[in-house]
Amino acid sequence: METDAQTYRIAVDCMGGDKGPAEVVQAVALALKKIGEGDRLILVGQEKVIRDAMRAAGLTSHPRVEIRHAPDVIGMDDKPMQAMKSKKNSSMIVALEMLKAGEVDAVVSTGNTKVMVGAGTLKVRLLPGVQRPALSAILPRKKGYSVVADVGANPETTPEQLVHNTVLGSLYSIAVLGTTKPKVGLLTVGTEEGKGGDRINRAHAYLKALNERFDWFEYVGPVEGFDVFQSDVDVIVTDGFTGNILIKTIEGLVYMIKDLVGEKVKRNPLYLGAGLVLLPLLRNLKSHLRPERFGGAPLLGLNGLVMKAHGSSNRYGTCAAIVMAHNACSKAMNKKASELLAVANEVVAEVQQGA
Amino acid sequence: METDAQTYRIAVDCMGGDKGPAEVVQAVALALKKIGEGDRLILVGQEKVIRDAMRAAGLTSHPRVEIRHAPDVIGMDDKPMQAMKSKKNSSMIVALEMLKAGEVDAVVSTGNTKVMVGAGTLKVRLLPGVQRPALSAILPRKKGYSVVADVGANPETTPEQLVHNTVLGSLYSIAVLGTTKPKVGLLTVGTEEGKGGDRINRAHAYLKALNERFDWFEYVGPVEGFDVFQSDVDVIVTDGFTGNILIKTIEGLVYMIKDLVGEKVKRNPLYLGAGLVLLPLLRNLKSHLRPERFGGAPLLGLNGLVMKAHGSSNRYGTCAAIVMAHNACSKAMNKKASELLAVANEVVAEVQQGA
Repeated sequence: METDAQTYRIAVDCMGGDKGPAEVVQAVALALKKIGEGDRLILVGQEKVIRDAMRAAGLTSHPRVEIRHAPDVIGMDDKPMQAMKSKKNSSMIVALEMLKAGEVDAVVSTGNTKVMVGAGTLKVRLLPGVQRPALSAILPRKKGYSVVADVGANPETTPEQLVHNTVLGSLYSIAVLGTTKPKVGLLTVGTEEGKGGDRINRAHAYLKALNERFDWFEYVGPVEGFDVFQSDVDVIVTDGFTGNILIKTIEGLVYMIKDLVGEKVKRNPLYLGAGLVLLPLLRNLKSHLRPERFGGAPLLGLNGLVMKAHGSSNRYGTCAAIVMAHNACSKAMNKKASELLAVANEVVAEVQQGA
Repeated sequence: METDAQTYRIAVDCMGGDKGPAEVVQAVALALKKIGEGDRLILVGQEKVIRDAMRAAGLTSHPRVEIRHAPDVIGMDDKPMQAMKSKKNSSMIVALEMLKAGEVDAVVSTGNTKVMVGAGTLKVRLLPGVQRPALSAILPRKKGYSVVADVGANPETTPEQLVHNTVLGSLYSIAVLGTTKPKVGLLTVGTEEGKGGDRINRAHAYLKALNERFDWFEYVGPVEGFDVFQSDVDVIVTDGFTGNILIKTIEGLVYMIKDLVGEKVKRNPLYLGAGLVLLPLLRNLKSHLRPERFGGAPLLGLNGLVMKAHGSSNRYGTCAAIVMAHNACSKAMNKKASELLAVANEVVAEVQQGA
C-alpha cells in the first residue's frame, strides 16, 4: 500500500511467541504510541482471542487497529512445507500473503523462525539478485553496535551468498544504526589471506573486488571471533550455520553469568549489596546482547519487510520489533539493494572469469 | 622414553608466548613442585636466555631440569611450511622432533598455533585412523565442564572427521574431567534431524550408528549454541571453523563484560563497593572461560601429546599446561584411541555402504 509515502501498514502475527497473544496485543498498545499518526497495525490471528486481549489492553475498537481472522496456529515444531500445506489459514501464512498482495508494508512475528524463512521466501519472494534470505542480528561491541548477517536463515552459505549478505547487512547497518560508510569484516579463523578454506578465500576475493567498485562501504578483510565484540567492524558477514551457533551460544553464556552472580549473592551476604547494584546491570547487559533489544532480526533479501522478534519476547521486545519494522519501512532499503546486488553479481562474475 | 611407566619427560618450548621466556621458566619452577619426583622437564630454546631466566627464577642447575639449545625463534606470523624449512632449529620444531624421536613424552608450547598444528602433524604424525588433529578446549557450563573439539586445527572438517573428533574428545573428557560415560552432542543450528546441511546429516547418521556399537559414550544427538553453556553435554563436537570462532568470540565478550563493569564502577561511586566484590568474580569467570585455566588445549589425534597453552598465558597458565600434559601422559589415551578409531571407521564404512 503506497497510497501515502509517509504512512505504513504493518501486519502483526498475534499467535506466535512463548508468552501468548495477550502479550503481543500489549505490545501493539505500546507501539501505537510510538509509530506515526497515520500508520495502521493489522492484528492477524484468532479473532475472538485477539478481541479479548484487546479488551484487556484497553484497545477496544481502536481507529488504527484492524483484525484479520486466521484460525490456524503454527507451533514451534511445525516444518515449513508441512505448515504451508496444512496451515494455510495460520496467522503467519496469512500475514505473509498480505505482504505478498501489497496489503501491508511489513510483517512482524514472534513465531517459528524456520517456517518464517521457508514461507517468507516462497510467498514474499526473493529480491532480484539474491539466492537466499539472511537473518540479521544486532550485537553490542566495545563501542557501538554491529550487524551480524546471517544468523540462521541459510546454514550452507556459498561465497556468492556471502557477498549478498555483505550488501544486505551493510544497507541494514546504514538504515538502522545510521552508519555512514560501514566497515565490513568476513568472519573466519585467521586474518591472513588463505586461512579458513576455499569458501572463505573465494568470498574474500569477491569482497576485495567489490571494495574497489563501491565507495559506500569498506571491506576491512577477514576478521576473527575476538573482533565481534572488540573491534570497530560494523558488519560481520558469516554463514547462517556459524552465525546461528554464535548468537545462541552468547545468549546461553549471558544467562550463565547472570545465574552465577545471582547464586553468589544468595550464598554470601557480603555479595548482597553488590548484587543489588550489579544485577540490574547484568539484566541490562542481557537484553543488550539479545536481538529483541532492537526489536527484532529482519529477514533481509525479500521483496518486503519480514521482521522476526525473539520467541520469548515480552511486550517491550515485541513493541520494539514493531517500531523497528516501521522505521525500516521508511528507509526503502530494498530499492537500493536491487541496484547494488546487480553490481555485486557483476563483480562476482568478473572475478570468476578472471580466475 | 618408557623406561619407567610412572615418570615422564616433558619438553617445554620456552621461546613462544607473549610474556617471553622468563615467564615460561617461572612456570617451570612452579610446575616442578606439582609433578612427580621422577619427572623431568626439558627446556627448549636459546640456552643463554634460558640460563638467565633460570637464575632469576632460582632454578640454577636443578636436577630435574635440562636445557636443549635451539637458536631460532618462531614468530606469531610465521607460516607452517616456511617455518619448518627455514627455522628447523627453532624451539618448537626441536621440541616436536624430540617427541617424534621418543626422547620426551609430551611437548608444551605457548607459541604459534598454526605452526604447531602443521609441524605437529608432519613431525609427530597422526594416530592410525585419524585424518586431521583436533584442538580441544574445555569450557565451563551451568554445572561442570565440557570439552569442545575442534577449536581450530581443522577448519574444513568432513563428517568422517567429526566422528574422529567425537572419539578423541570423549576420551579426553574421560581422561581430564573424569567423566564416566560422556554425553556427546553434535553442534548445529537446530535439534531436528535434517537441519544444518548435508555435512551435519551425514555426521549424525554415523554417530547414531556408533552409539549402537559403543557403550562407553552416549550420543545425545544434535545440540544448539544455547546448549554449550546451558546443557549437561560433556563433549561438543564441531568443525575447527565454528569452534575457533566460538571460543574467540566468547573470549572477546568476557573482556567486554569485565570492561563494562569496570567503567560503571569508575563513573559512579555507588558502584564502587559492588565493583570491589564483583570484579574478582568476573576476573575469575574470565579465567574460567579461557582454555589456560585448564592449562592448555591439546592437539588430539597425534602419536604423542602436544599441548598448546594460550599465547597470553602467565606463569600460572603455563604451569597448569605443564601439569595437564603430565596428567594426560599418564592416561594412555592414545592406546585406547587407536582401537576405538578403528571401530569407528568400520562403522562409518558400514553406514556409507548401507546408504
